[in-house]
Amino acid sequence: MNTLPERLKSQIAFILELDQLKSVQRRSILSHENRRENSAEHSWHVALMSMLLCELADEPVDASKVMLMLLIHDIVEIDAGDAYIYDEAANQGKYERELAAAQRIFGLLPPDQAGHYLSLWEEFELKATPEARFAASCDRFIPLLHNHASQGQSWKEHGISHAQVVKVNQPIQEGSTQLWEAAQCLIGEALKKGFLAKE
Amino acid sequence: MNTLPERLKSQIAFILELDQLKSVQRRSILSHENRRENSAEHSWHVALMSMLLCELADEPVDASKVMLMLLIHDIVEIDAGDAYIYDEAANQGKYERELAAAQRIFGLLPPDQAGHYLSLWEEFELKATPEARFAASCDRFIPLLHNHASQGQSWKEHGISHAQVVKVNQPIQEGSTQLWEAAQCLIGEALKKGFLAKE
Repeated sequence: MNTLPERLKSQIAFILELDQLKSVQRRSILSHENRRENSAEHSWHVALMSMLLCELADEPVDASKVMLMLLIHDIVEIDAGDAYIYDEAANQGKYERELAAAQRIFGLLPPDQAGHYLSLWEEFELKATPEARFAASCDRFIPLLHNHASQGQSWKEHGISHAQVVKVNQPIQEGSTQLWEAAQCLIGEALKKGFLAKE
Repeated sequence: MNTLPERLKSQIAFILELDQLKSVQRRSILSHENRRENSAEHSWHVALMSMLLCELADEPVDASKVMLMLLIHDIVEIDAGDAYIYDEAANQGKYERELAAAQRIFGLLPPDQAGHYLSLWEEFELKATPEARFAASCDRFIPLLHNHASQGQSWKEHGISHAQVVKVNQPIQEGSTQLWEAAQCLIGEALKKGFLAKE
Protein backbone atom coordinates (compact mmCIF):
# COMPACT_ATOMS: atom_id res chain seq x y z
CA MET A 1 0.00 0.00 0.00
CA ASN A 2 2.95 2.27 0.83
CA THR A 3 4.20 2.41 -2.72
CA LEU A 4 0.91 3.65 -4.21
CA PRO A 5 0.58 7.27 -5.42
CA GLU A 6 -0.63 9.58 -2.59
CA ARG A 7 -3.88 10.46 -4.35
CA LEU A 8 -4.80 6.80 -4.84
CA LYS A 9 -3.83 6.03 -1.26
CA SER A 10 -6.38 8.59 -0.01
CA GLN A 11 -9.02 7.23 -2.37
CA ILE A 12 -8.38 3.68 -1.18
CA ALA A 13 -8.55 4.75 2.48
CA PHE A 14 -12.02 6.15 1.74
CA ILE A 15 -13.09 3.05 -0.21
CA LEU A 16 -12.05 0.80 2.68
CA GLU A 17 -13.83 3.05 5.17
CA LEU A 18 -17.05 2.55 3.17
CA ASP A 19 -16.98 -1.11 4.17
CA GLN A 20 -18.31 -0.11 7.58
CA LEU A 21 -21.65 1.00 6.14
CA LYS A 22 -22.36 -2.71 5.58
CA SER A 23 -22.52 -3.09 9.36
CA VAL A 24 -25.04 -0.29 10.00
CA GLN A 25 -28.44 -1.89 10.60
CA ARG A 26 -31.69 -0.26 9.51
CA ARG A 27 -35.18 -1.13 10.79
CA SER A 28 -36.45 -2.44 7.44
CA ILE A 29 -36.83 -6.20 7.16
CA LEU A 30 -35.87 -7.87 3.87
CA SER A 31 -38.78 -9.25 1.91
CA HIS A 32 -37.10 -12.64 1.25
CA GLU A 33 -35.08 -13.22 4.42
CA ASN A 34 -36.00 -12.48 8.02
CA ARG A 35 -33.20 -10.10 8.87
CA ARG A 36 -32.74 -6.36 9.02
CA GLU A 37 -31.34 -4.57 6.02
CA ASN A 38 -28.04 -2.69 6.27
CA SER A 39 -27.43 0.79 4.94
CA ALA A 40 -25.08 -0.29 2.13
CA GLU A 41 -27.65 -2.69 0.66
CA HIS A 42 -30.31 -0.03 1.05
CA SER A 43 -28.17 2.54 -0.77
CA TRP A 44 -27.72 0.17 -3.72
CA HIS A 45 -31.41 -0.62 -3.84
CA VAL A 46 -32.70 2.94 -3.64
CA ALA A 47 -30.12 4.25 -6.14
CA LEU A 48 -31.23 1.70 -8.71
CA MET A 49 -34.90 2.36 -7.94
CA SER A 50 -34.38 6.08 -8.52
CA MET A 51 -32.98 5.41 -11.99
CA LEU A 52 -35.94 3.20 -12.90
CA LEU A 53 -38.52 5.65 -11.60
CA CYS A 54 -36.94 9.00 -12.54
CA GLU A 55 -39.73 9.47 -15.10
CA LEU A 56 -42.02 10.08 -12.08
CA ALA A 57 -40.14 13.14 -10.80
CA ASP A 58 -42.24 16.31 -10.84
CA GLU A 59 -39.39 18.42 -12.21
CA PRO A 60 -36.83 17.34 -14.83
CA VAL A 61 -33.88 15.68 -13.07
CA ASP A 62 -30.37 14.55 -13.95
CA ALA A 63 -30.98 10.89 -13.15
CA SER A 64 -27.27 10.06 -12.78
CA LYS A 65 -26.89 12.78 -10.20
CA VAL A 66 -29.88 11.44 -8.24
CA MET A 67 -28.32 7.98 -8.36
CA LEU A 68 -24.92 9.17 -7.12
CA MET A 69 -26.56 11.23 -4.38
CA LEU A 70 -28.37 8.13 -3.16
CA LEU A 71 -25.21 6.03 -3.29
CA ILE A 72 -23.53 8.45 -0.87
CA HIS A 73 -26.49 9.75 1.19
CA ASP A 74 -26.11 7.32 4.10
CA ILE A 75 -22.31 7.20 4.37
CA VAL A 76 -22.52 9.54 7.37
CA GLU A 77 -24.22 6.72 9.30
CA ILE A 78 -20.79 5.09 9.67
CA ASP A 79 -20.24 7.63 12.46
CA ALA A 80 -23.74 8.88 13.24
CA GLY A 81 -25.74 5.62 13.05
CA ASP A 82 -29.16 5.16 11.48
CA ALA A 83 -31.88 7.28 13.14
CA TYR A 84 -35.24 5.50 12.77
CA ILE A 85 -37.50 7.91 10.95
CA TYR A 86 -40.38 7.35 13.44
CA ASP A 87 -38.14 8.03 16.46
CA GLU A 88 -38.43 11.78 17.05
CA ALA A 89 -35.88 11.84 19.89
CA ALA A 90 -33.24 10.06 17.78
CA ASN A 91 -33.76 12.65 15.07
CA GLN A 92 -32.91 15.62 17.34
CA GLY A 93 -29.53 17.08 16.39
CA LYS A 94 -29.24 14.58 13.54
CA TYR A 95 -28.08 17.11 10.94
CA GLU A 96 -25.22 18.36 13.11
CA ARG A 97 -24.02 14.84 13.92
CA GLU A 98 -24.23 13.84 10.28
CA LEU A 99 -22.45 16.96 9.06
CA ALA A 100 -19.53 16.23 11.38
CA ALA A 101 -19.49 12.66 10.04
CA ALA A 102 -19.58 13.88 6.44
CA GLN A 103 -16.65 16.20 7.09
CA ARG A 104 -14.57 13.41 8.62
CA ILE A 105 -15.42 10.68 6.12
CA PHE A 106 -15.41 12.62 2.84
CA GLY A 107 -12.32 14.35 4.27
CA LEU A 108 -10.42 11.09 3.70
CA LEU A 109 -10.60 11.78 -0.06
CA PRO A 110 -8.22 14.07 -1.99
CA PRO A 111 -9.40 17.70 -1.41
CA ASP A 112 -11.13 18.17 -4.80
CA GLN A 113 -13.20 15.00 -4.39
CA ALA A 114 -13.84 15.66 -0.69
CA GLY A 115 -15.34 19.05 -1.55
CA HIS A 116 -17.42 17.65 -4.38
CA TYR A 117 -18.95 14.81 -2.38
CA LEU A 118 -19.51 16.89 0.76
CA SER A 119 -21.41 19.42 -1.29
CA LEU A 120 -23.45 16.67 -3.01
CA TRP A 121 -24.34 15.26 0.42
CA GLU A 122 -25.39 18.72 1.67
CA GLU A 123 -27.50 19.29 -1.44
CA PHE A 124 -29.35 16.05 -0.64
CA GLU A 125 -29.81 16.92 3.03
CA LEU A 126 -31.08 20.42 2.32
CA LYS A 127 -33.37 19.26 -0.52
CA ALA A 128 -32.02 22.23 -2.37
CA THR A 129 -32.57 21.00 -5.95
CA PRO A 130 -35.02 18.88 -8.00
CA GLU A 131 -32.50 16.01 -7.82
CA ALA A 132 -32.30 16.19 -4.03
CA ARG A 133 -36.10 16.36 -3.69
CA PHE A 134 -36.64 13.36 -5.95
CA ALA A 135 -33.86 11.40 -4.22
CA ALA A 136 -35.50 12.11 -0.86
CA SER A 137 -38.87 10.88 -2.23
CA CYS A 138 -37.27 7.61 -3.32
CA ASP A 139 -35.53 7.24 0.05
CA ARG A 140 -38.91 7.41 1.84
CA PHE A 141 -40.81 5.31 -0.67
CA ILE A 142 -38.64 2.20 -0.57
CA PRO A 143 -39.15 1.41 3.15
CA LEU A 144 -42.90 1.59 2.46
CA LEU A 145 -42.43 -1.10 -0.17
CA HIS A 146 -40.48 -3.23 2.30
CA ASN A 147 -43.08 -2.80 4.99
CA HIS A 148 -45.84 -3.66 2.56
CA ALA A 149 -43.96 -6.73 1.31
CA SER A 150 -43.25 -7.98 4.85
CA GLN A 151 -46.88 -7.43 5.96
CA GLY A 152 -45.85 -4.47 8.11
CA GLN A 153 -43.34 -6.40 10.22
CA SER A 154 -41.20 -3.39 11.09
CA TRP A 155 -44.25 -1.12 11.72
CA LYS A 156 -45.73 -3.76 14.05
CA GLU A 157 -42.47 -4.25 15.95
CA HIS A 158 -42.28 -0.55 16.68
CA GLY A 159 -46.02 0.08 17.19
CA ILE A 160 -46.27 2.56 14.31
CA SER A 161 -49.77 3.86 13.48
CA HIS A 162 -51.42 4.80 10.20
CA ALA A 163 -51.31 8.50 11.16
CA GLN A 164 -47.54 8.31 11.78
CA VAL A 165 -46.94 6.60 8.44
CA VAL A 166 -48.96 9.25 6.59
CA LYS A 167 -47.16 12.09 8.39
CA VAL A 168 -43.66 10.71 7.80
CA ASN A 169 -44.28 9.88 4.15
CA GLN A 170 -46.16 13.00 3.06
CA PRO A 171 -42.88 14.71 2.05
CA ILE A 172 -42.69 12.18 -0.82
CA GLN A 173 -44.93 14.63 -2.68
CA GLU A 174 -42.22 17.31 -2.59
CA GLY A 175 -40.31 15.35 -5.24
CA SER A 176 -43.00 13.32 -6.96
CA THR A 177 -46.78 13.60 -6.98
CA GLN A 178 -47.07 10.23 -8.69
CA LEU A 179 -44.88 8.48 -6.14
CA TRP A 180 -46.95 10.00 -3.34
CA GLU A 181 -50.12 8.71 -5.02
CA ALA A 182 -48.56 5.24 -5.20
CA ALA A 183 -47.48 5.54 -1.55
CA GLN A 184 -51.06 6.36 -0.56
CA CYS A 185 -52.27 3.24 -2.39
CA LEU A 186 -49.77 1.11 -0.47
CA ILE A 187 -50.61 2.74 2.87
CA GLY A 188 -54.37 2.33 2.24
CA GLU A 189 -53.92 -1.32 1.34
CA ALA A 190 -51.68 -1.92 4.38
CA LEU A 191 -54.37 -0.46 6.63
CA LYS A 192 -57.10 -2.55 5.01
CA LYS A 193 -55.09 -5.77 5.31
CA GLY A 194 -54.17 -5.12 8.94
CA PHE A 195 -50.41 -4.59 8.27
CA LEU A 196 -50.77 -1.23 9.99
CA ALA A 197 -52.76 -0.22 13.10
CA LYS A 198 -55.36 2.55 12.68
CA GLU A 199 -54.27 4.24 15.96
CA MET B 1 -50.85 -2.69 -5.16
CA ASN B 2 -53.72 -3.60 -7.50
CA THR B 3 -54.76 -0.02 -8.06
CA LEU B 4 -51.31 1.15 -9.25
CA PRO B 5 -50.72 1.95 -12.94
CA GLU B 6 -49.58 -1.16 -14.90
CA ARG B 7 -46.16 0.32 -15.74
CA LEU B 8 -45.41 1.13 -12.11
CA LYS B 9 -46.64 -2.31 -11.05
CA SER B 10 -44.02 -3.94 -13.33
CA GLN B 11 -41.33 -1.60 -12.05
CA ILE B 12 -42.22 -2.39 -8.43
CA ALA B 13 -42.21 -6.14 -9.14
CA PHE B 14 -38.63 -5.73 -10.41
CA ILE B 15 -37.61 -3.54 -7.46
CA LEU B 16 -38.93 -6.13 -5.00
CA GLU B 17 -37.18 -8.91 -6.90
CA LEU B 18 -33.89 -7.05 -6.41
CA ASP B 19 -34.20 -7.67 -2.67
CA GLN B 20 -33.01 -11.22 -3.26
CA LEU B 21 -29.53 -10.08 -4.30
CA LYS B 22 -28.99 -9.17 -0.63
CA SER B 23 -29.07 -12.91 0.12
CA VAL B 24 -26.46 -13.96 -2.47
CA GLN B 25 -23.20 -14.57 -0.60
CA ARG B 26 -19.81 -13.84 -2.14
CA ARG B 27 -16.43 -15.19 -0.95
CA SER B 28 -15.07 -11.80 0.10
CA ILE B 29 -14.87 -11.15 3.83
CA LEU B 30 -15.71 -7.67 5.12
CA SER B 31 -12.77 -5.73 6.47
CA HIS B 32 -14.58 -4.66 9.68
CA GLU B 33 -16.81 -7.64 10.44
CA ASN B 34 -16.08 -11.33 10.11
CA ARG B 35 -18.80 -12.26 7.66
CA ARG B 36 -19.06 -12.77 3.93
CA GLU B 37 -20.19 -9.91 1.77
CA ASN B 38 -23.39 -10.18 -0.25
CA SER B 39 -23.72 -9.16 -3.88
CA ALA B 40 -25.96 -6.15 -3.22
CA GLU B 41 -23.43 -4.59 -0.84
CA HIS B 42 -20.66 -5.38 -3.29
CA SER B 43 -22.57 -3.71 -6.15
CA TRP B 44 -22.97 -0.55 -4.10
CA HIS B 45 -19.31 -0.52 -3.11
CA VAL B 46 -17.87 -1.14 -6.55
CA ALA B 47 -20.23 1.35 -8.24
CA LEU B 48 -19.11 4.09 -5.90
CA MET B 49 -15.47 3.07 -6.26
CA SER B 50 -15.74 3.31 -10.06
CA MET B 51 -16.99 6.90 -9.80
CA LEU B 52 -14.10 7.87 -7.52
CA LEU B 53 -11.46 6.21 -9.69
CA CYS B 54 -12.81 6.88 -13.18
CA GLU B 55 -9.86 9.23 -13.74
CA LEU B 56 -7.72 6.06 -13.94
CA ALA B 57 -9.52 4.58 -16.97
CA ASP B 58 -7.26 4.19 -19.99
CA GLU B 59 -9.91 5.48 -22.39
CA PRO B 60 -12.37 8.34 -21.72
CA VAL B 61 -15.49 6.90 -20.07
CA ASP B 62 -18.99 8.07 -19.23
CA ALA B 63 -18.62 7.61 -15.47
CA SER B 64 -22.39 7.53 -14.83
CA LYS B 65 -22.77 4.70 -17.30
CA VAL B 66 -19.97 2.73 -15.61
CA MET B 67 -21.70 3.27 -12.28
CA LEU B 68 -25.10 2.10 -13.54
CA MET B 69 -23.52 -0.91 -15.21
CA LEU B 70 -21.93 -1.91 -11.92
CA LEU B 71 -25.18 -1.41 -10.02
CA ILE B 72 -26.88 -3.97 -12.28
CA HIS B 73 -23.99 -6.30 -13.21
CA ASP B 74 -24.66 -8.92 -10.53
CA ILE B 75 -28.47 -8.98 -10.60
CA VAL B 76 -28.29 -12.21 -12.62
CA GLU B 77 -26.86 -13.92 -9.53
CA ILE B 78 -30.39 -13.96 -8.07
CA ASP B 79 -30.96 -16.95 -10.37
CA ALA B 80 -27.45 -18.04 -11.32
CA GLY B 81 -25.62 -17.62 -7.98
CA ASP B 82 -22.15 -16.20 -7.48
CA ALA B 83 -19.44 -18.18 -9.27
CA TYR B 84 -16.17 -17.82 -7.33
CA ILE B 85 -13.67 -16.37 -9.77
CA TYR B 86 -11.00 -18.94 -8.80
CA ASP B 87 -13.37 -21.90 -9.31
CA GLU B 88 -12.89 -22.87 -12.96
CA ALA B 89 -15.61 -25.57 -12.89
CA ALA B 90 -18.21 -23.16 -11.48
CA ASN B 91 -17.38 -20.75 -14.29
CA GLN B 92 -18.21 -23.25 -17.06
CA GLY B 93 -21.44 -22.27 -18.84
CA LYS B 94 -21.68 -19.18 -16.65
CA TYR B 95 -22.56 -16.80 -19.47
CA GLU B 96 -25.48 -18.94 -20.67
CA ARG B 97 -26.90 -19.32 -17.16
CA GLU B 98 -26.55 -15.62 -16.50
CA LEU B 99 -28.08 -14.63 -19.83
CA ALA B 100 -31.18 -16.71 -19.05
CA ALA B 101 -31.32 -15.02 -15.62
CA ALA B 102 -30.96 -11.57 -17.19
CA GLN B 103 -33.79 -12.29 -19.60
CA ARG B 104 -36.11 -13.42 -16.81
CA ILE B 105 -35.25 -10.71 -14.29
CA PHE B 106 -34.97 -7.65 -16.56
CA GLY B 107 -38.05 -9.06 -18.29
CA LEU B 108 -40.09 -8.08 -15.22
CA LEU B 109 -39.64 -4.43 -16.26
CA PRO B 110 -41.78 -2.62 -18.86
CA PRO B 111 -40.44 -3.61 -22.33
CA ASP B 112 -38.52 -0.38 -23.03
CA GLN B 113 -36.64 -0.57 -19.74
CA ALA B 114 -36.19 -4.35 -19.99
CA GLY B 115 -34.47 -3.91 -23.36
CA HIS B 116 -32.30 -1.07 -22.11
CA TYR B 117 -31.02 -2.87 -19.01
CA LEU B 118 -30.56 -6.19 -20.74
CA SER B 119 -28.40 -4.53 -23.35
CA LEU B 120 -26.41 -2.66 -20.67
CA TRP B 121 -25.80 -5.97 -18.88
CA GLU B 122 -24.64 -7.60 -22.16
CA GLU B 123 -22.33 -4.68 -22.88
CA PHE B 124 -20.70 -5.26 -19.50
CA GLU B 125 -20.41 -9.01 -19.98
CA LEU B 126 -18.91 -8.71 -23.45
CA LYS B 127 -16.54 -5.89 -22.42
CA ALA B 128 -17.62 -4.27 -25.65
CA THR B 129 -16.94 -0.63 -24.74
CA PRO B 130 -14.48 1.49 -22.69
CA GLU B 131 -17.16 1.73 -19.96
CA ALA B 132 -17.55 -2.04 -19.79
CA ARG B 133 -13.79 -2.60 -19.70
CA PHE B 134 -13.27 -0.08 -16.91
CA ALA B 135 -16.26 -1.47 -14.96
CA ALA B 136 -14.76 -4.96 -15.23
CA SER B 137 -11.40 -3.66 -13.96
CA CYS B 138 -13.08 -2.16 -10.91
CA ASP B 139 -15.04 -5.37 -10.31
CA ARG B 140 -11.76 -7.33 -10.10
CA PHE B 141 -9.84 -4.73 -8.15
CA ILE B 142 -12.17 -4.41 -5.18
CA PRO B 143 -11.92 -8.05 -4.00
CA LEU B 144 -8.14 -7.59 -4.02
CA LEU B 145 -8.58 -4.67 -1.64
CA HIS B 146 -10.80 -6.81 0.61
CA ASN B 147 -8.34 -9.66 0.59
CA HIS B 148 -5.48 -7.32 1.37
CA ALA B 149 -7.46 -5.66 4.20
CA SER B 150 -8.44 -9.01 5.74
CA GLN B 151 -4.86 -10.37 5.51
CA GLY B 152 -5.85 -12.73 2.74
CA GLN B 153 -8.56 -14.53 4.71
CA SER B 154 -10.59 -15.57 1.67
CA TRP B 155 -7.46 -16.58 -0.33
CA LYS B 156 -6.26 -18.70 2.60
CA GLU B 157 -9.65 -20.38 3.09
CA HIS B 158 -9.70 -21.45 -0.55
CA GLY B 159 -5.97 -22.19 -0.89
CA ILE B 160 -5.40 -19.61 -3.62
CA SER B 161 -1.82 -19.11 -4.78
CA HIS B 162 0.08 -16.04 -5.95
CA ALA B 163 0.10 -17.35 -9.53
CA GLN B 164 -3.70 -17.74 -9.51
CA VAL B 165 -4.18 -14.23 -8.17
CA VAL B 166 -1.94 -12.77 -10.86
CA LYS B 167 -3.69 -14.74 -13.61
CA VAL B 168 -7.22 -13.85 -12.50
CA ASN B 169 -6.42 -10.17 -12.00
CA GLN B 170 -4.33 -9.51 -15.10
CA PRO B 171 -7.44 -8.49 -17.10
CA ILE B 172 -7.61 -5.38 -14.87
CA GLN B 173 -5.13 -3.90 -17.36
CA GLU B 174 -7.70 -4.11 -20.17
CA GLY B 175 -9.55 -1.16 -18.59
CA SER B 176 -6.87 0.60 -16.60
CA THR B 177 -3.09 0.38 -16.66
CA GLN B 178 -2.89 2.42 -13.46
CA LEU B 179 -5.31 0.17 -11.60
CA TRP B 180 -3.33 -2.86 -12.72
CA GLU B 181 -0.13 -1.23 -11.40
CA ALA B 182 -1.86 -0.63 -8.07
CA ALA B 183 -3.13 -4.23 -8.08
CA GLN B 184 0.43 -5.49 -8.59
CA CYS B 185 1.58 -3.41 -5.58
CA LEU B 186 -1.15 -4.98 -3.43
CA ILE B 187 -0.41 -8.50 -4.66
CA GLY B 188 3.34 -8.04 -4.10
CA GLU B 189 2.74 -6.74 -0.58
CA ALA B 190 0.32 -9.59 0.16
CA LEU B 191 2.94 -12.11 -0.90
CA LYS B 192 5.64 -10.42 1.18
CA LYS B 193 3.46 -10.29 4.29
CA GLY B 194 2.36 -13.91 3.94
CA PHE B 195 -1.31 -13.14 3.13
CA LEU B 196 -0.85 -15.20 -0.02
CA ALA B 197 0.97 -18.49 -0.62
CA LYS B 198 3.72 -18.50 -3.26
CA GLU B 199 2.52 -21.85 -4.69
